[in-house]
Amino acid sequence: MALQNFSKFKFFNVTVPAQYVVHIEINRPQKLNAFFTPMWFELKAIVQQLSHDPDVRCILLSGAGDRAFTAGLDVEQAAKSDNPLSADIADPSRKATVIRREILELQDVISAVARCEKPIIALVHGYTYGLGIDLSSACDVRFCAADTKFCVKEVDIGLAADVGTLSRLPKVVGGVTSWVKDVCLSARPFSAEEALKNNFVSRVVNGSKADLIQEGLKYAQYLSTKSPVAVQGTKNILDAAWGRTVEDNLNYTAVWNAGMVQSSDVKRAMLSGLQKRTPTFEKL
Amino acid sequence: MALQNFSKFKFFNVTVPAQYVVHIEINRPQKLNAFFTPMWFELKAIVQQLSHDPDVRCILLSGAGDRAFTAGLDVEQAAKSDNPLSADIADPSRKATVIRREILELQDVISAVARCEKPIIALVHGYTYGLGIDLSSACDVRFCAADTKFCVKEVDIGLAADVGTLSRLPKVVGGVTSWVKDVCLSARPFSAEEALKNNFVSRVVNGSKADLIQEGLKYAQYLSTKSPVAVQGTKNILDAAWGRTVEDNLNYTAVWNAGMVQSSDVKRAMLSGLQKRTPTFEKL
Amino acid sequence: MALQNFSKFKFFNVTVPAQYVVHIEINRPQKLNAFFTPMWFELKAIVQQLSHDPDVRCILLSGAGDRAFTAGLDVEQAAKSDNPLSADIADPSRKATVIRREILELQDVISAVARCEKPIIALVHGYTYGLGIDLSSACDVRFCAADTKFCVKEVDIGLAADVGTLSRLPKVVGGVTSWVKDVCLSARPFSAEEALKNNFVSRVVNGSKADLIQEGLKYAQYLSTKSPVAVQGTKNILDAAWGRTVEDNLNYTAVWNAGMVQSSDVKRAMLSGLQKRTPTFEKL
Amino acid sequence: MALQNFSKFKFFNVTVPAQYVVHIEINRPQKLNAFFTPMWFELKAIVQQLSHDPDVRCILLSGAGDRAFTAGLDVEQAAKSDNPLSADIADPSRKATVIRREILELQDVISAVARCEKPIIALVHGYTYGLGIDLSSACDVRFCAADTKFCVKEVDIGLAADVGTLSRLPKVVGGVTSWVKDVCLSARPFSAEEALKNNFVSRVVNGSKADLIQEGLKYAQYLSTKSPVAVQGTKNILDAAWGRTVEDNLNYTAVWNAGMVQSSDVKRAMLSGLQKRTPTFEKL
Amino acid sequence: MALQNFSKFKFFNVTVPAQYVVHIEINRPQKLNAFFTPMWFELKAIVQQLSHDPDVRCILLSGAGDRAFTAGLDVEQAAKSDNPLSADIADPSRKATVIRREILELQDVISAVARCEKPIIALVHGYTYGLGIDLSSACDVRFCAADTKFCVKEVDIGLAADVGTLSRLPKVVGGVTSWVKDVCLSARPFSAEEALKNNFVSRVVNGSKADLIQEGLKYAQYLSTKSPVAVQGTKNILDAAWGRTVEDNLNYTAVWNAGMVQSSDVKRAMLSGLQKRTPTFEKL
Amino acid sequence: MALQNFSKFKFFNVTVPAQYVVHIEINRPQKLNAFFTPMWFELKAIVQQLSHDPDVRCILLSGAGDRAFTAGLDVEQAAKSDNPLSADIADPSRKATVIRREILELQDVISAVARCEKPIIALVHGYTYGLGIDLSSACDVRFCAADTKFCVKEVDIGLAADVGTLSRLPKVVGGVTSWVKDVCLSARPFSAEEALKNNFVSRVVNGSKADLIQEGLKYAQYLSTKSPVAVQGTKNILDAAWGRTVEDNLNYTAVWNAGMVQSSDVKRAMLSGLQKRTPTFEKL
Repeated sequence: MALQNFSKFKFFNVTVPAQYVVHIEINRPQKLNAFFTPMWFELKAIVQQLSHDPDVRCILLSGAGDRAFTAGLDVEQAAKSDNPLSADIADPSRKATVIRREILELQDVISAVARCEKPIIALVHGYTYGLGIDLSSACDVRFCAADTKFCVKEVDIGLAADVGTLSRLPKVVGGVTSWVKDVCLSARPFSAEEALKNNFVSRVVNGSKADLIQEGLKYAQYLSTKSPVAVQGTKNILDAAWGRTVEDNLNYTAVWNAGMVQSSDVKRAMLSGLQKRTPTFEKL
Repeated sequence: MALQNFSKFKFFNVTVPAQYVVHIEINRPQKLNAFFTPMWFELKAIVQQLSHDPDVRCILLSGAGDRAFTAGLDVEQAAKSDNPLSADIADPSRKATVIRREILELQDVISAVARCEKPIIALVHGYTYGLGIDLSSACDVRFCAADTKFCVKEVDIGLAADVGTLSRLPKVVGGVTSWVKDVCLSARPFSAEEALKNNFVSRVVNGSKADLIQEGLKYAQYLSTKSPVAVQGTKNILDAAWGRTVEDNLNYTAVWNAGMVQSSDVKRAMLSGLQKRTPTFEKL
Repeated sequence: MALQNFSKFKFFNVTVPAQYVVHIEINRPQKLNAFFTPMWFELKAIVQQLSHDPDVRCILLSGAGDRAFTAGLDVEQAAKSDNPLSADIADPSRKATVIRREILELQDVISAVARCEKPIIALVHGYTYGLGIDLSSACDVRFCAADTKFCVKEVDIGLAADVGTLSRLPKVVGGVTSWVKDVCLSARPFSAEEALKNNFVSRVVNGSKADLIQEGLKYAQYLSTKSPVAVQGTKNILDAAWGRTVEDNLNYTAVWNAGMVQSSDVKRAMLSGLQKRTPTFEKL
Repeated sequence: MALQNFSKFKFFNVTVPAQYVVHIEINRPQKLNAFFTPMWFELKAIVQQLSHDPDVRCILLSGAGDRAFTAGLDVEQAAKSDNPLSADIADPSRKATVIRREILELQDVISAVARCEKPIIALVHGYTYGLGIDLSSACDVRFCAADTKFCVKEVDIGLAADVGTLSRLPKVVGGVTSWVKDVCLSARPFSAEEALKNNFVSRVVNGSKADLIQEGLKYAQYLSTKSPVAVQGTKNILDAAWGRTVEDNLNYTAVWNAGMVQSSDVKRAMLSGLQKRTPTFEKL
Repeated sequence: MALQNFSKFKFFNVTVPAQYVVHIEINRPQKLNAFFTPMWFELKAIVQQLSHDPDVRCILLSGAGDRAFTAGLDVEQAAKSDNPLSADIADPSRKATVIRREILELQDVISAVARCEKPIIALVHGYTYGLGIDLSSACDVRFCAADTKFCVKEVDIGLAADVGTLSRLPKVVGGVTSWVKDVCLSARPFSAEEALKNNFVSRVVNGSKADLIQEGLKYAQYLSTKSPVAVQGTKNILDAAWGRTVEDNLNYTAVWNAGMVQSSDVKRAMLSGLQKRTPTFEKL
Repeated sequence: MALQNFSKFKFFNVTVPAQYVVHIEINRPQKLNAFFTPMWFELKAIVQQLSHDPDVRCILLSGAGDRAFTAGLDVEQAAKSDNPLSADIADPSRKATVIRREILELQDVISAVARCEKPIIALVHGYTYGLGIDLSSACDVRFCAADTKFCVKEVDIGLAADVGTLSRLPKVVGGVTSWVKDVCLSARPFSAEEALKNNFVSRVVNGSKADLIQEGLKYAQYLSTKSPVAVQGTKNILDAAWGRTVEDNLNYTAVWNAGMVQSSDVKRAMLSGLQKRTPTFEKL
C-alpha cells in the first residue's frame, strides 16, 4: 500500500504532514465543500484504504478554504442529478424501496468513517452544516475554530437527518439531552462555544484556520507516538460500549485483550517506562 | 378533532396561544399543583388527543400559579384515598401484584407524554419535585425559571422513584453521572443553575414566570414553522436511539425516511430555500 | 457480621467513622497505593462483606497518604510476579486463554465494587491513574481534591484499559464524547477542574486532603439518614438503566418496587414528613 | 369486578365454564369469525378486565361455529369502512403517519392478549388465517383440532403481516427456521399435523370441536388448581426472557421472586406436599 | 441492470430458469465446489447485484456436480495462498489484527447473502461441509436431497466456525439446543433426515439431484407470483426480529408498513381476491 | 492443579474415567440426590476448578443410584435450616432483600456450570425434577435414559422457578413454545420421549443406567480428541449468541478468533488432515 497513491483523489487532498499522520481535506471550496454523489464514494475509498495502512496511525479531517468544513449536501446538484427523490416512481412502496437503498448506501459511507481502525480527528471551521454534523459525529475527537457555525440543518429541508446525526449525536454528546432535542428539532445554528459547553467538541482553537490545523496536527503527532495496538483497541472498545451493557462490554474487552496484550508494544512500553525512554512501536 | 373541546378538562387549562401551539397548564395551584388520582388520567387523555391532532405542532407544559410547576404527588390525598399502599392485603405477594399494576398504570401516563408525536416543551418554575422530575424528563426540551427548585424527592418518602425519573434521567442528562447518583440518592434540592450545568434544562429564563412562558411560546412558534414531518420524525428517531446500538438506529432511520422523505414538505422546503421564501406545510 | 472484623485486613484500613458509614482506605502509601495481586482479592472480600452488612449504609473509598488515591497497577511487582503476561507459553491461543481468565478475574474485583448494594463515594486526591480510574468509575459518586491528577494511563503501557474504565467511563460521564476519546486515546493527565467540567466528578473540594475526607464523611452521614430501602433501590435501578431501553427499565422498576414499597420505611417517612420529624429506619 | 358483566359483550361470548376458568368465544360465525373494527376494541376491553379479575386463573379462547377460529380480517368491511388504506390523502408521508397510528393501535390489541396476566389457551379449529395466527401466537399454549387449516395469509393481500405474527412466531416456534420463512413468505396453508411438528401447537385433539373445547377446559381447570402466584409469575418471566440475555433474565427473576416468594402459596404448597393434600390458594 | 451480464462470472453459473427466478450454481465441481479467495468476492458481487435487480424475485443457490453443495474451504489453496494464517508476522497482536480483518471480510460475504432483499432458497446435496453450513444458514429456506452429508466441520481444522454458522445456526434452528451444541462441538456429520428433524431444512427431496432442483424451482416460481413488496418486507422483518424484543420488532414493523402498505400490490391483491383472479404485480 | 484432589469432595464423586474426561456424580442417592445448602457450594467449587484444569476437556454430570438424577431441592432440609424463607423478618422489603441475595447466590452456582469453559454433558435418569432441570439446562448437551421422569416442579411448591430454568429453557429448546409454557405452567411430568421430541435432550439411551453412562463416556472421549481451543471457543461463542443480534455475535466471533486461530491446533489439525492422521493437541 503506497502513500503516494493518495494523489489520485479528485475531491479530497490527502497528504502526509508528519510521520504516521494523514490529512484528508475536503476539497471543493468554491461550493463550501458541499457534497455530491461522486464525493461520497471517494471518501469511503480513502478511509477504507487508510484504515488498514500500516503507515497511518492518526487521521485529520478538515475542509479546504476559509469558509466551511462543509455546508452539507449540494442541494442543487441533488435536485439536478438522478437521485431517488426525483425518480419518477408512482407507487409509494417502490419509491420507498429505492429511497431506503440510497439512504443505507450513504449511511455506509459515514459508517466507514466511524469504523476506521485509526482515530480520526475532525478539525472543523466555518459552515459545518447538515452532513458536516453527520461526518464529524462519526469522528473520534472534534476540535473546532472559534468561528465555526454548526447546524443540524435537515429539518429545514423537510426531513429527519438520516445518514448518522440522529444516531450518533446522543452517543458523542451524552444522551438525548434537552440541548440535543433543541438543536435537532429546530435546525437553529449554534456556535463553537455552545458546541464546547455541550460536549460536541472538546477544544475550541482561537486564531486562524491555520492555527486549528496546526493544533490538530500537534495532537495527531502526539497520538502517533503511542502504541498503535493500544490506541486502536481503545477506540474499538469504546465504540462497542454504546447501546450495550457494561457486562457485555467487559467480556468483549477481555476477549479483545486476550490477543492484544501479547503485543510487543506492552514489553516496549513497560521497558521504556522503567528506563525513562520514549518507546517506538512496530507498524500496525 | 375540535380544539374547543379542550375546555372540558378539570385539572388542566388547555389553550391555543398561537397557531399550531397548545399550552397545557397544570391547574391546582392552591395545592402547589400536586397530583392525585383523577389528574393522572386526565393528563393522559389530553396528551393522547393532542398527539394525533393535525392542528397541533408543538405543546407547552407548565404549572399554574407562582409557586410550583408541581410539588409532586399529593401525599395527603394518597394516604386518604384507596391507593394500593393503604390496601389491607396481608399476603405480601398479592399486595405486590396490586402495587405493580398501579405503578405500571402511572408509568403509562408519563410514557404517554414521552410518546406524544408532537414535541413537548416543559416550562418549569418554583417547586419541581418528585413527579415534576418524572414529568419534565418525559418532555423533549426543558426551560426553567431562575427560581426553580428541583428535587428527586422520592427517597425522602422511603422509595425509589418509580414512574420514570430513574429510567429517563440518565437518558436526558447523559448517563449515570456522579451528579445523577448524587441528586437521586440524596433527594437534595438543586437549583436552576445546577440543572443547566448538568444538562437537565437547556435554558434558564431570567425574569418573571410570564417571561418564561413568553420565551417558551416564542420557541414553540418557531418550531411550528418547521416541517411537521421532519420535526416529528426527528423526535421519534432520537428517542428510539436510546439503549439501542448505532447500527440498529441507522437502519430504523432508513426505514422511517423511506416513507417520510416522499413528503411534500421536502419539495416545499427545498423550493422555498432556493427562492429564499418561508415555506408552509400541510397539517400532520 | 461484626464490624470489629475489619481490623483483619492487610492492605486496607477499614474504619467506622460514623454510624452506618464505613471508610475503606487503600493503605500502601509508600508505593503510591499501587495495586499488586493480593490487594485485589482483599478489596473484593471487603466490599462483598460490606454489601450485605446491615450496619452499613454508605461507604467511603480513599487512598492513604498525601500523594495518591492510587497510582494504578504496581508495574514492577507485575513484572516480577508470576503474572500471565510473563508466563512462558509459546502458543498464542493458550496464552490468550490464560490472559483472558486473568482479566476476567480482575474485572470481577472492580465489578464487585460496582455491584455493592450500598452506595460507595470515591474520595480521590493526588495520583489517580489507571486502576484509579477503573476503581472510581465503579463507585457511585466521585468527589476529588483540587490537586488530583487523573490519567487513563493504560495506553502508555501499551494496552487498552481492560478492567473497567472503557466500559464504565461512557456510563458515568455521559457517552463516548470527544473528551472521553481524547483522554482515553492519548493517556494525557487531566485536572480536577477538567474532571468536574466533564462530569467525571460532581464536586471538587478545595483545601487539604483532610477537608476532602471531611466533606465526604458529611455527605455519607447525610445519605445514611435516608431510607436504606430507597437509597439502595435507587442505586440498583439507575445502574440497571444503562445499555437497556427506557421501556425495559420502567418494567424492571415496577417489579422492584412491587416488593420494596411495602417497606416500613415508606410509612415512617410519610408519617415523619407529616409530623415534621426526622424518621429513623430499620437496618437493611 | 363482577363476572356477570360479561354478558354485555356484543361480538364475544364470555362464559365461566368452571371455577376460575373463563371462556372467550369469538362470536361472528356467519362471517367465519372475521374481525372488523368494533371487534378489536371489544376484545381488548375483555382481556384487560380478565387480566386483573381475581376470580380468573385461566382463559380459553376459541371461535364460534364449526368452520373457523377466525378467517382473519374482514376484507370487505375493511374496504367499505373509513380505514386508513382507503383514506384520501395525497401526500405519502402523511398517509404513512395515519397508517402507522392504525397499525400501532391494532398491534396494541394483540399485545393486550400477550400481556394478560393470566395464561390464555388458544383452542383453534377450521380456518385459522391471518389474524388467527397473530392472535393465537399471542396466547400461551395452543391446542388445535385435527381439521385446522392454518395460514399466514398476509402476503396474499399484498403486505407483510403487521399486527404480531412476524414478531411472535419466531418466539413461539423457536427461531427464524426454514419452516417459518416458508409459511410466512409463501402464504401457503398448513395442517394441524404440520403445526404440531413445527412446535406451533403442543397438542392436536382428534374428534369433534366439542372434544377440543373439552380438552382445553380440562387443562384450564388443572392449571387453575395451581398457585396463581407461581403460574402468573412463570408466564411473566418466560415472556421477559425473549430477545434478552440469560443474565438479564436471571436478575429479573431474582427481583420478581424477592417479593413473590413471600406468598402464602409457598407455605400452603409445601405443607400440602408434606401432608399429601391438595392445596388451595387465595385469589389473585 | 441486464441479466445477460450474468454470463461474466467465473466460478458461478448464473441463469434465469423462469421469470423472476435466478439460479446461482457454485461451479467448481472438480474440487467439490470448495471455495478459495476469488470465489468469495464473486459471490458477493453476484448477490449484491441480484438484491436490487427488479427482474429478480427469488434466488436458488446450489452446487454443480453430483457430489457436493460445497465441501467448504479449499484448505490446500488456503495453505498455499498468501492468507493471513500463513503470514509471517511475529507479533501476536499484529497477526491478530490481520486475521480479524480477514474474518470480517469473509463474514461480510456471507452476510451479503443474508441481507439480500430477495429470498434465497438453498438447495443442498452431497457434501455440505463447513462453509456449506455458513452459506446455507444465511439463506431463507433450505431444501436438501436425501443423500446430503452435513457437517459443521471447523472444529476438525482446529478452530471455532467464524464466518457465520455459530451466529446463525441458533437463529435458523431455534436456539442453542443440545443438538446444536452436539454437532458444533463434535464436528460429526449428520444426515438429511437429522437436518429435517432438527429444523435445519424444511424439506428433504427424494430422488435425483435434478429432482431437488426441480422442486426448488417450482417453489421459487410460486413465491415469484406473490407480491414482491409483501415477500421482501416479510423477509426483512423476520430477520430483524432475532435478538431483539417483540416490542421493538412490532414498532419496526409498523414503521416499515407505514410506507409499504401504500403499495399498489395491496389494491391489486385485494381486487384479485374479490374477483378470484391471479394478480400480477409491478417489478420491485 | 492435581486431579487427585478430587477425592476431597463430600457430596459428589469426582472421577477420571478416561484421559481428559472428568465425571461428576451427585452423590446423595438415599435422598434421591436432592440438594441442600452445602451441596450447592461444593458443586460450584468443583466446576470452577475443572473449568481451568488443563487436564480436563470434557465433563460428565450424572446422579448416583438408580432412582434419580436429582429430585431437586431437599424441601425438608430447606424447611429446617435457616433459609431466608423461614427467616423471621417482619418487613416485606427487608425480607425481599434477603431472599433476593439468596436467589442470586444459588443462580450463581448454576451459572458457574453454564460458564464452565469445558463442555459439560448431562446424563440424566430417573427423577429429574426442579433443580434437575435448572442444572441440566445449564449443561451443553443432554442425553437421558429412557426411564427419565422430567418435571419443572416449582409451580407445585408455589413459586416461579428462579435459579435458571425459566431463563435457559427457552434458550436450549428453541423459544417460548407452546410446550415450554405447558410444562412450566402446569408442572406436569414429561417423559424422555417428549424431552427428545421437544429438543430438550438430543439422545435417549435405551438400556440400563450403566448404558447411559457408557454412551456419555464414549461421546466425551470423542470430544476430547478434538482441538480444545476449537471446542471451547465454539461453546463460548454459541452461548454468547443468545439474546444478542447476529451482527454483534459475528463481530465477537472475529475478535475471539483473531487470537485463537493463531493456535498450534490449526496447524496440527490441517497437517493431520492432509496426512490422514489423528492429530493430538497441547493441553488447554
